[in-house]
Amino acid sequence: MTDIIRIPKDDLHNVCRAAFERVGVPRDDADAAADILVVGDLMGISTHGTRRVIIYCQRILDGAIVADPEITIDERSPCLAVIDGGNGMGPVIGSRGVAAAVRLAKESGMAYVGCRNSHHFGPVAPYSARACDAGMVSLMGTNTQPVMAPWRGAAVVHGNNPIGIAAPRRNGPPFILDMAQSVVAFSKLRHAHEAGETIPEGWAADADGHVTTDPLKGMKGWVLPIGGHKGYGLALAVDMLSGVLSGGQAATGVNQLFRRDETPQGVSHFFIALDPARLLGAEAYYEQMETFCQTIKATPAADPDLPVLIPGEPEAASMAETLEAGIPMPRERFEDIQRIADGKQPRTMPDQ
Amino acid sequence: MTDIIRIPKDDLHNVCRAAFERVGVPRDDADAAADILVVGDLMGISTHGTRRVIIYCQRILDGAIVADPEITIDERSPCLAVIDGGNGMGPVIGSRGVAAAVRLAKESGMAYVGCRNSHHFGPVAPYSARACDAGMVSLMGTNTQPVMAPWRGAAVVHGNNPIGIAAPRRNGPPFILDMAQSVVAFSKLRHAHEAGETIPEGWAADADGHVTTDPLKGMKGWVLPIGGHKGYGLALAVDMLSGVLSGGQAATGVNQLFRRDETPQGVSHFFIALDPARLLGAEAYYEQMETFCQTIKATPAADPDLPVLIPGEPEAASMAETLEAGIPMPRERFEDIQRIADGKQPRTMPDQ
Repeated sequence: MTDIIRIPKDDLHNVCRAAFERVGVPRDDADAAADILVVGDLMGISTHGTRRVIIYCQRILDGAIVADPEITIDERSPCLAVIDGGNGMGPVIGSRGVAAAVRLAKESGMAYVGCRNSHHFGPVAPYSARACDAGMVSLMGTNTQPVMAPWRGAAVVHGNNPIGIAAPRRNGPPFILDMAQSVVAFSKLRHAHEAGETIPEGWAADADGHVTTDPLKGMKGWVLPIGGHKGYGLALAVDMLSGVLSGGQAATGVNQLFRRDETPQGVSHFFIALDPARLLGAEAYYEQMETFCQTIKATPAADPDLPVLIPGEPEAASMAETLEAGIPMPRERFEDIQRIADGKQPRTMPDQ
Repeated sequence: MTDIIRIPKDDLHNVCRAAFERVGVPRDDADAAADILVVGDLMGISTHGTRRVIIYCQRILDGAIVADPEITIDERSPCLAVIDGGNGMGPVIGSRGVAAAVRLAKESGMAYVGCRNSHHFGPVAPYSARACDAGMVSLMGTNTQPVMAPWRGAAVVHGNNPIGIAAPRRNGPPFILDMAQSVVAFSKLRHAHEAGETIPEGWAADADGHVTTDPLKGMKGWVLPIGGHKGYGLALAVDMLSGVLSGGQAATGVNQLFRRDETPQGVSHFFIALDPARLLGAEAYYEQMETFCQTIKATPAADPDLPVLIPGEPEAASMAETLEAGIPMPRERFEDIQRIADGKQPRTMPDQ
């Protein structure tokens, strides 16, 4: 039985920052990366939160992720920029990306910033939250290592490429949609297999590209996109906006995170920020947004115990709970991050 | 048996333009609207193409759609603008929207244009094609009359809110993703019902919000979103980008197209254009895009008869075929559009 403990946010932040610093990441960058991953945990997106600190540190020690990269920004117009991340840590480069998009949008009204030569950057929602905190509407996303086949295809060629669309609110938590283009995460196949269960049709295809209800066959194949060709199209669109437009890598050009050599991952991200106060005036915008959200929330629920939610509400509820009670995680993982901070080897290998 | 005839593109354009002019639309606007709808037909998106000319004309005669509206554009920054469509025809206002976004993006590098007080504007892809023709990457969308319930909700509150994401190519048809947020179109429920078939689980909910395999129950309920809560979130995001950010109507603020009174529909659209030549240089962009598309196209097919496609390829194939052979449509519909152009009543009522 896994021993789950609760860590106060600041304690977790400090130990993650210390681990990054121990493997050579400068203090400010270590802070920025810890912040993104801890906020991911607070939001309940623990699959992409501090769970990833161990592999990030491992990849730095391998020489794949550059601990102190040269990050350059090329401003091509008052609202267009490309960041070359110099193969640094994803959350460091992603933090620069969203900050640059917000800064340019404050000047120009809106902006696009593409980031190339980056790595896995954690969950999207913490970046969306930063844009919301700055009063910006945002669209953003990242490509990922290939985990899916093109629709009708029989080989893994592109990522599940999450997109984030967000808008600030005054009388409620920010509207934050953060979604990958697969019906389910790969881990759900593993859980079904371990439980000896079949999976619903539509979750996964086997290695030949045929839909399967056998989770083990699905694990040898790939997870399927939402809405079939629609989710496939969205995955390509996010890759185009990230990998193509940043001048970086896309599709099979992106490498796996979990490998043991010096190959950087070559992940690309994009950040679009738009200033709604400039567009409509702040008062008019927030009033429009509240009317919209209240209309949706007023919908009667099909099951009275499961009220209608606005995207971002589950994350806000998780944040309120974990800020109070601490972030739940396996004791072993917390101790492993602590061991890296202390200059020791983690006792377990990082898991996908 | 419906009598299907093939109409050459120019003939169809001319009769649609003549119908619009007959009900009071100025020549240039009639041309712009006919162009969008005919291109929709050419692309094979006939559900949203010239099939809609009859209801548009009817709504003009009803006094709901303004034939010669005062359309204003408020440029809030070099890359932000809002168009008030004055309750004119959707394709007229949408054409102005995409043109304004392209013009501003040529100056600034990128732009957002929101359109309010518009109507049903046809399919998204023809607008995407215009942005591609101008060398622009684009994201766009529209809200629609409410046809879906919020996830976990038990009432129809928002539209299926299609999104379009597109990018120009040099060595292939433009990348154009045009997708609504529902698993299937409502018409598929009707077809299943007429054929006496059940529908797959996941297509529709009954009027109480419970998933049903009975198409008739689904027709009294609503179609379900792709990926459950994911497609629901996308539908809200498109509504936010269209209805909230344009200062227009969103969710239940949008009215039905098929009604018989003077109520305008209050549809909103958004258009984001981005100049990839400014961002990367034209050569570098087109090279990036080709490498990406070729990587996807090189994927082996699960079924050799069904090769992997890039979004936009089916539309391009349809266009090549219909430009050559003419646009297929029921003879009765073509004659009805002709009757409106001649100042007569159509013989059939427009159908949803």
